[in-house]
Amino acid sequence: MASKLRITILEPDPERARMIVDGLCDAGDYSITIIGDETSLNQRLSELNPDVVLVDIANPNRDTLEQLSLASGAASRPVAMFVDRSDPDLTKAAIEAGLSAYVVDGLHKNRIKPVIDAAIARFNMVAKIRNERDAAKAALADRKTIDRAKGLLIAAKGISEDEAYSLLRKTAMDQGRKVVDVATALVTASELLK
Amino acid sequence: MASKLRITILEPDPERARMIVDGLCDAGDYSITIIGDETSLNQRLSELNPDVVLVDIANPNRDTLEQLSLASGAASRPVAMFVDRSDPDLTKAAIEAGLSAYVVDGLHKNRIKPVIDAAIARFNMVAKIRNERDAAKAALADRKTIDRAKGLLIAAKGISEDEAYSLLRKTAMDQGRKVVDVATALVTASELLK
Repeated sequence: MASKLRITILEPDPERARMIVDGLCDAGDYSITIIGDETSLNQRLSELNPDVVLVDIANPNRDTLEQLSLASGAASRPVAMFVDRSDPDLTKAAIEAGLSAYVVDGLHKNRIKPVIDAAIARFNMVAKIRNERDAAKAALADRKTIDRAKGLLIAAKGISEDEAYSLLRKTAMDQGRKVVDVATALVTASELLK
Repeated sequence: MASKLRITILEPDPERARMIVDGLCDAGDYSITIIGDETSLNQRLSELNPDVVLVDIANPNRDTLEQLSLASGAASRPVAMFVDRSDPDLTKAAIEAGLSAYVVDGLHKNRIKPVIDAAIARFNMVAKIRNERDAAKAALADRKTIDRAKGLLIAAKGISEDEAYSLLRKTAMDQGRKVVDVATALVTASELLK
């Protein structure tokens, strides 16, 4: 282990906050910050930048759930939410809002650590697939743009496909830019000049 | 709701099996099958083809965990696993093995339904991203193959890029195949004839 895992906990109830901290201290060595008031969550989190966020709310509704997922940065870090009650629609909304763990009626001292472990593993697993998806989409979009730019050069200058690509590549190197950026500029310009 | 959710439960302990069934019957209307012996799991599941699988094992190790994930079809349907004990490495392995829920020390009557709901929502969410990734990768691979085939035709026949694509497309239509299949055949043939 490089350094202590930094956990920020949103817990308005001091009793429950103490129980969560007890459970975590029994299980390992963490750097823990408690936030009691959700209105300051977003700002405190940008200062703290924790590795994991744990949110405990008794009765979420769809609005608080989505707002808390957003404020806790569920898309960019593991966030585990404990709730006392839920229903299937709310559970679905929680998971689609990006929560890495959503635990209904399961806040017990010795279960906090395994839920944090699972949230981290889940977040990393989903992030990996999402990154692969985004990279594949970006590569496809780049290739389409470069193909369009090559097509424009072939038509405008009567050159071959290879020559068109060489011209894009040379321009990119001369300007210290990426081929796709030069291609995008060319496609945009040609649309403006239509 | 169209029809009852079909749940298959792997639970060797009759007492715990009864508790799980009780918990589910309190929560909704399900079609439930209990399997007591994991050696028949794979075969029974291919007969039953359930919507969700619930696995309860006291002390998993990495081998049983991966073997049960595979046998329960965790990659192709929501599978929730309840265990009594775990550790961070085991939790990570469980999630990477494709389990849609991995619950440590949390098998209580009123928590089964919310865990099933969460497993279904998680499975669908991950499947959606995975499908998007696979579609983007396939589209990129197809485009590369078609580009290579066009390049081969341009070089071999001295035709333009547009003419090369038209020729691929016409051949595909004539043969009732996809453009990418014709392109793949051409690329393969040209490698064989090198």
